[in-house]
Amino acid sequence: MKRGFLIVKDYQGYLIDLDGTMYQGNERIHAAKEFVEFLKDKGLPHLFLTNNSSKTQLEIANKLNEMDIPATENHIFTSSMATASYIAAKNQDGCVFVIGEGGLHEALLSKGLVITDENPDFVVIGIDREITYEKLAKACLFVRNGAEFLSTNSDIAIPTERGLVPGNGALTSVITVSTGVEPVFIGKPEPIIMEQALQTLGLSKDETLMVGDNYHTDIMAGIQAGVDTLMVFTGVTPFEDFPTLPTKPTYHVRDLSEWIKKKLSNQTD
Amino acid sequence: MKRGFLIVKDYQGYLIDLDGTMYQGNERIHAAKEFVEFLKDKGLPHLFLTNNSSKTQLEIANKLNEMDIPATENHIFTSSMATASYIAAKNQDGCVFVIGEGGLHEALLSKGLVITDENPDFVVIGIDREITYEKLAKACLFVRNGAEFLSTNSDIAIPTERGLVPGNGALTSVITVSTGVEPVFIGKPEPIIMEQALQTLGLSKDETLMVGDNYHTDIMAGIQAGVDTLMVFTGVTPFEDFPTLPTKPTYHVRDLSEWIKKKLSNQTD
Repeated sequence: MKRGFLIVKDYQGYLIDLDGTMYQGNERIHAAKEFVEFLKDKGLPHLFLTNNSSKTQLEIANKLNEMDIPATENHIFTSSMATASYIAAKNQDGCVFVIGEGGLHEALLSKGLVITDENPDFVVIGIDREITYEKLAKACLFVRNGAEFLSTNSDIAIPTERGLVPGNGALTSVITVSTGVEPVFIGKPEPIIMEQALQTLGLSKDETLMVGDNYHTDIMAGIQAGVDTLMVFTGVTPFEDFPTLPTKPTYHVRDLSEWIKKKLSNQTD
Repeated sequence: MKRGFLIVKDYQGYLIDLDGTMYQGNERIHAAKEFVEFLKDKGLPHLFLTNNSSKTQLEIANKLNEMDIPATENHIFTSSMATASYIAAKNQDGCVFVIGEGGLHEALLSKGLVITDENPDFVVIGIDREITYEKLAKACLFVRNGAEFLSTNSDIAIPTERGLVPGNGALTSVITVSTGVEPVFIGKPEPIIMEQALQTLGLSKDETLMVGDNYHTDIMAGIQAGVDTLMVFTGVTPFEDFPTLPTKPTYHVRDLSEWIKKKLSNQTD
């Protein structure tokens, strides 16, 4: 199968990663603004798809807007939202014990789920910078007692200006190691979040392109869900790693300006 | 090789587990007092050997005394003490970043080691019921920066009246999963703590018997260090599991009264 720069399919919609694709910390990434404006001009539906479970849709949209990247709340789809939808679909009356930050609490409550500290049906963990031993102890007791164990995402590290600090996948391991129970992970690279995002976008797998910088989350999410992928080298996975990637992305570009150029020269959208 | 009740070797000293062997929570286990008094009467050196890194020698001796089990500070050997000795032997001027409770801090300071929050040579984790995200973040940054990573023990769960809550092995996994670096574990079943305990006792492997209830920590510690083992069924590992144990302990008894009876009928000590 031919891949790369020459043949560029006409996609009807885009799923776009944030960290390492749109911004790095609080800095906008080169051509991120132009890329989103290009999609907007062409009227192409798009969703920003993030494993970040801590922030609300509004907070993330505001962050993008502060960097002059156009976005509304409805353009944001988080692992917290996917987790809440997953639980609501399984048991709308389910009670949930939560370890996590504001975005996760808001997503669960907005689906009408009850957050509890006693006898939960579900235990959910997302990144929690206010984590305590007592929260972890309760989670272990509930999971051992039969509560279904979910984790918003399996990211092992978060890049910060200080270096790589523990991600939610690392915090999740306390409960996994202690109880011997593996969670259902919801976020990228799992197909769960991809299916929900496609549904929200209102498009099929074949019509959509997943854009991201992290091979193990963004690109694998596309590959595992059967969605074409565009890999950028503005974030986590360095270009030097490209030859070693076991399954290649459908397309790869140094940064998004290359993609815009390619699309403009194609003029097929 | 013949094992079990008939042939009982004359041991010159004993290493004795605490939790599940001497007490269960705050309750003394049947024949624990009589067993220790028996050793005392016979003038047999013994050390209580615990993976508990949170308590000091004095606190543990006091706990035993409150249950009428004779013990002084010098009879206690903890995974924190073994960790401190291990570090001091590697680098007496080493600086240590610590996640842990009072017993670990005291053990490190009593070996003359410096506890620091910046550029440590070692990162040590023991159970910490005041764990925070910031402590875990710092540990990850230091380990990624090359600090040697140690963990007092690998116990995945701690029995409490509420059920099994996370042990230090579970907390340790946050750093292991996030950095990809495995720690050196010090406590049972590792040979490191056994070798130090034998040295403190002043006896050889052949002269010593390791007594405990937990197959995976106490008995495996003996097996891996080449020390004979006496297994009791008053704690974690149930008697029903005995037939499935891959390598059997040298001896096994329902509780320590059986061992006293056996020794008295042998009258060889």
